Amino acid sequence: MFTLTDEPKIVGVVGGGQLCRMMCEAVSPLGLEIICLDPTPDAPARAVCRDQIVGAFDDPEALSELIERSDWLTYDIELAAPEVIREINTQIPVHPRPETLHMIEDKLRQKTRLQEAGIPVPAFTDVEKAEDVRKAADDFGYPLMIKSRTGGYDGRGNLPVHSAEEISSVLNQLPGQLMAESFVPYERELSVMGVKQKNGTATYPPTETVHEEQILRHTITPARTSETMKARAEDLATSVLEVMEGRGVYGIEMFEADGDLYINEIAPRPHNSGHWTIEGAQTSQFEQHLRAVTGLPMGSTEPHQASVTVNILGSQGERPVHLDGVDELLKRPGVHLHWYGKKQERRLRKMGHFTVTGEDPDNTLEHAMELKQHLTFKP
Amino acid sequence: MFTLTDEPKIVGVVGGGQLCRMMCEAVSPLGLEIICLDPTPDAPARAVCRDQIVGAFDDPEALSELIERSDWLTYDIELAAPEVIREINTQIPVHPRPETLHMIEDKLRQKTRLQEAGIPVPAFTDVEKAEDVRKAADDFGYPLMIKSRTGGYDGRGNLPVHSAEEISSVLNQLPGQLMAESFVPYERELSVMGVKQKNGTATYPPTETVHEEQILRHTITPARTSETMKARAEDLATSVLEVMEGRGVYGIEMFEADGDLYINEIAPRPHNSGHWTIEGAQTSQFEQHLRAVTGLPMGSTEPHQASVTVNILGSQGERPVHLDGVDELLKRPGVHLHWYGKKQERRLRKMGHFTVTGEDPDNTLEHAMELKQHLTFKP
Repeated sequence: MFTLTDEPKIVGVVGGGQLCRMMCEAVSPLGLEIICLDPTPDAPARAVCRDQIVGAFDDPEALSELIERSDWLTYDIELAAPEVIREINTQIPVHPRPETLHMIEDKLRQKTRLQEAGIPVPAFTDVEKAEDVRKAADDFGYPLMIKSRTGGYDGRGNLPVHSAEEISSVLNQLPGQLMAESFVPYERELSVMGVKQKNGTATYPPTETVHEEQILRHTITPARTSETMKARAEDLATSVLEVMEGRGVYGIEMFEADGDLYINEIAPRPHNSGHWTIEGAQTSQFEQHLRAVTGLPMGSTEPHQASVTVNILGSQGERPVHLDGVDELLKRPGVHLHWYGKKQERRLRKMGHFTVTGEDPDNTLEHAMELKQHLTFKP
Repeated sequence: MFTLTDEPKIVGVVGGGQLCRMMCEAVSPLGLEIICLDPTPDAPARAVCRDQIVGAFDDPEALSELIERSDWLTYDIELAAPEVIREINTQIPVHPRPETLHMIEDKLRQKTRLQEAGIPVPAFTDVEKAEDVRKAADDFGYPLMIKSRTGGYDGRGNLPVHSAEEISSVLNQLPGQLMAESFVPYERELSVMGVKQKNGTATYPPTETVHEEQILRHTITPARTSETMKARAEDLATSVLEVMEGRGVYGIEMFEADGDLYINEIAPRPHNSGHWTIEGAQTSQFEQHLRAVTGLPMGSTEPHQASVTVNILGSQGERPVHLDGVDELLKRPGVHLHWYGKKQERRLRKMGHFTVTGEDPDNTLEHAMELKQHLTFKP
C-alpha cells in the first residue's frame, strides 16, 4: 500500500456495522481503503469508507462484486456466509479462512473442535427434545444453558434452564438446532484479544467483561484477577489461536471459575470486548486486524494504562430520540466517545461506547460509572 | 449529532487534502460526517468522507452545493476564497469567519493586524521595487526576507536577500505583490496550536519546529526551551486567538530569539505542526477543530508524553515509486504511521508523517531520526 499507483489498495469487508466503521477509522492512516457489503443502505461504515455495496451477506452476486473490487476480504460479522465465499472462485486472500467461520458459526461445532484440541470448555451436548435436556441435566446438573447452535448474538439464542419444569418452555423459545451447556459458576468473565499473523501470534492483556441480560455492559482493563490467572488466560488464548485458520484478530471470551479457565465463545474478528484497545493499547484491535489481513507487520499489543469501556445501549425504541449527557462526557480529560451513527435506536442495541483511561482499574471504573449515569436517551 | 434522525450532521470542508482526511478519521467517532470540496478528483480525504464535490475552491456553484449539503462550513486550506463564501447568502455557521481568512491570506494584512493589536512581529514593510527593498534594508539590515503577500505556502513565495546585489534577482523570482520582513536570528522556532471556542480559548503546549528549505521536517514536543518561555508562548498564542474571528483551531508559528518571541505566521486551521496531538495529546487538533466548529465542548489539550512527528516528503518525482522501510516503522511500539494516500509524488511534497512517542524529547527525537533513515522512496 506504500506504492503510488492509480489504484488504492482495498479491503473488502462483509458487514458495514460499527466494527467496520471503526476499521475504516483505524485503517485510513495506513493508506488502506475499505469497501463494505451490508444489506442496510447507509450502514454505519458508509460515512467513512470508499463505498458500500448494498446486498445480503450471502448474496453471491453482491459478494462477487465485493471480491472483484477488493485486494483482500474479511468480515465484521460472523453472519458472513463462509460456504458462499468458498464457492466463489476468488484470487484474493480471505482472512480469517472461511473454514474458521464455518467452524465458529455453529456453537456445537466450535465447542467440539476446541475440545478435540484439548482446550477446556464447559461440558456440552447436542439436544433436540426435552428428554435430551433432562439427560444433560442428569450429567451436568442445573442450571443448564440451552443455546441455539447458529445465528445467535448479543445473548439472543441463549436461555438458562433452572429445573425440569422450565425445559419445554425454553425449548419453545429458542429457534433452530440446539445444544445444552453446563453452567459455569464463574467468579468473573475474561476476554483476550488474540492476533494471528503470518509468522506467529500475539495476545493483548486480558480484559474483565461484565454482562447483564447477556449483553456486554462494560470492560475493565487490566482484569482485576491474579497475575497468574492473567498469564494463563493469555496462554489459553494462544492455544485457541493455534486452532484457528487464517490471519486476523480473534475475540476469545472465557470464564474464570475456582482457579480454572473455560472458553465461552470465540469471535473471528475484532470484538466489543476489545474496544478498549483504541485508546488503551499501542495498536487498536481494528488496526491490528487489518494489518494481519493485509500482511503488514504485527503492531505492539502493549497497554498504555488502565481503561474502562462502557457500551451505550438503546433504551427508548422511539424516534426521534437524543442522547443526553454527552457534553459532560466530552469535557472530561481521558474520556473518548465513539458514536456509531446508527439511524434506528432500539432497546439494548449498541449505539456507541465510551472509553475512560486512568491510573488504575478501580478508580477508572468509578469514573466511568459516574459518567454513565449522565447518559440517557430521551424522546 | 446525538439525535437520531435520517439526516446525519455534515461538516462541509473546503479542501480535501491530508488535513481534511485526518479530520474525517477524527470526527467519525463523534458521529459527524464530512463532505469536502476539492478540484482534484479522488482527493486524499475522499476515501474516508461521505462525499467529495469536485470543483475549484472559489467556484461559486460548487461552494453553493457544499453549503447546501452541510450543517457547518470550515476549511483545510487557506486558499479557500473568503470573498466568495461571504457573497453566498448562507444560513449555516462558517468557522473560522471569512473575515479571518481574508485577513490571514494576505501576509501584509495579517502582520499589520497583529501589530495593531500589540502582538510582537518581525519588522516588516510593503515593497514594490528594488528601491523599496534597499530602503527596508537600511531600516532592518541584511538579510531580509522577501515574501509574496498571497498564495505562498510550504516556503514557496519566500526568499532571503543577503545583499543589495541579490535584490533584483529575488524580485524577479517572486510572483504578485510583495513585502519585506526583517530576518529574526532565532534560536528555535516554536508553534502553539490554539483553540477558539464559543466560551473561551485554550492552547496546547508549545512544540519545537524544525524547517529545512522552509518546509517543516519534524516537530519535538515538549519544546526544549525554558518553562518561562513555554508559558510565554502559550500566553502569546492566547493574545493571537483574541484577534481571530470565528471558532476553530489555529496554528500559531513563532520565533524565539534572545529571550523574545515574535509571531511568524498563523494558519486558521489544523496545522502540520499540530499533528503530534493525534497520539501525543488527550484530544487531537482535528477532533478539537471540529468540536469547535460544530459547537461541541472543548476537549482537553493536555499532552500524554513526549512526541516527535516527522514529515515523509517526496523525493523521486517519478512513478511508480514505493516507500521502503515502512515495515521497520510499523513494528516499533510507540510509532504511528499516517499515510495520506496521494496518487502523485513530487520532491518535498508531504506524502505522510509518523509520530514517535516516548519518555523525553531527546530520546524520542533520536528514535525518530533513526527510523527516518530507513524510509526512502524508491522507483
